[in-house]
Amino acid sequence: MLVYGKNVLKDIEVKKIRRVYLAENFHDREIMNYLVNNHIHYFYRPKNQLDKMVERNHQGIVIDMDSFQYSSLESSKGEEFIVALDHLEDTHNFGAIIRTCEAAGVKTIIIPKDRSVRVNDIVMKTSVGAIDRVKIVLVNNLCETLKKLQKDNYFVYGAFMDGEDYKTLDYSGKKILVIGNEGNGISNIVENTIDFKVGIPMEGKVNSLNASVAAGILIFEMK
Amino acid sequence: MLVYGKNVLKDIEVKKIRRVYLAENFHDREIMNYLVNNHIHYFYRPKNQLDKMVERNHQGIVIDMDSFQYSSLESSKGEEFIVALDHLEDTHNFGAIIRTCEAAGVKTIIIPKDRSVRVNDIVMKTSVGAIDRVKIVLVNNLCETLKKLQKDNYFVYGAFMDGEDYKTLDYSGKKILVIGNEGNGISNIVENTIDFKVGIPMEGKVNSLNASVAAGILIFEMK
Repeated sequence: MLVYGKNVLKDIEVKKIRRVYLAENFHDREIMNYLVNNHIHYFYRPKNQLDKMVERNHQGIVIDMDSFQYSSLESSKGEEFIVALDHLEDTHNFGAIIRTCEAAGVKTIIIPKDRSVRVNDIVMKTSVGAIDRVKIVLVNNLCETLKKLQKDNYFVYGAFMDGEDYKTLDYSGKKILVIGNEGNGISNIVENTIDFKVGIPMEGKVNSLNASVAAGILIFEMK
Repeated sequence: MLVYGKNVLKDIEVKKIRRVYLAENFHDREIMNYLVNNHIHYFYRPKNQLDKMVERNHQGIVIDMDSFQYSSLESSKGEEFIVALDHLEDTHNFGAIIRTCEAAGVKTIIIPKDRSVRVNDIVMKTSVGAIDRVKIVLVNNLCETLKKLQKDNYFVYGAFMDGEDYKTLDYSGKKILVIGNEGNGISNIVENTIDFKVGIPMEGKVNSLNASVAAGILIFEMK
């Protein structure tokens, strides 16, 4: 998998890095020292070749690393607070939510296999290294997974426009926060498994928070 | 100014719409009725022509509207809660913060003229119509503006990594929240005008929230 950018390099575990491509005019002493000291193989390439490898501003450095390893649900057994994304679509939102989880101490994010963002290079870049510290669990059926976790004494909270004021609820015990799709919110089938609907009271007329912002507000309140 | 997307159309004040371009294969009865009922001029164009007009997925509809009108600081006189962005760079973050402000009832955002995001078509799109309900004030010098507002009894809160726990502070009175640049935070010169440094305690190691997520958490706590 190709990722890119100077900050990203240092946030990746060295053993996951296969090789690094540098633009021919790349000169950053700190990065060069880092590559040499960590015995990372690097190769110079014309800048336009790097431009073709990745779609965004790479700062002259593209990193070929081991593909992302999703975690198993079992590896998150007993965790106090899990976040589940019900068919989130936007990679930038996914990256921002990964960062938020990492900062809030949430160690697991569950995503469904179908019609959902996956971990790709934009998510890696947007999450600024947080991806290495949060387990991403890919499940066949989010609804079944939530039911299974409910049997394991998790309470499932879902973010809804018309949910109860998030500041008034009690979040003690093991819990899961479900964030819905950017356009459609939480799907009907997942809605049926929700124990508590949480909402952020709004004063405006447009009343739509960005999904990662809404997730951030709820996660930092619930943690 | 060109903006695009079906939802955006309905969020724009009709009088600001100059004309609408539809892709030749566009068919959405609701939108067509809206255009006809509101006497909006529309023109069909080949899809590839729309692709050239705007850089992102336009859903077959591009709207030519009056350019954005920035507001004067005087128009926000007496408001309880103002948000200021100290050289924010990312248009998606700006759009998300505009949505957050609208939802939280914050009616004014101050941005500096130099080295800062401006309102463009991506901001319009990302803010999903909220831009029409929040005043954006463009100032020559953010620091001077904050000092001026302090004389008018505003307290200035700045978001800092090492600020005091945002949940422990008292936010009564007229207040301004300053959010810094994505990479560098609040600039030194603006830092000198800050009355209170607010921080979001984090448990992770990467510890960097997306700027719009951090803004969302603080705005909904302070409001």
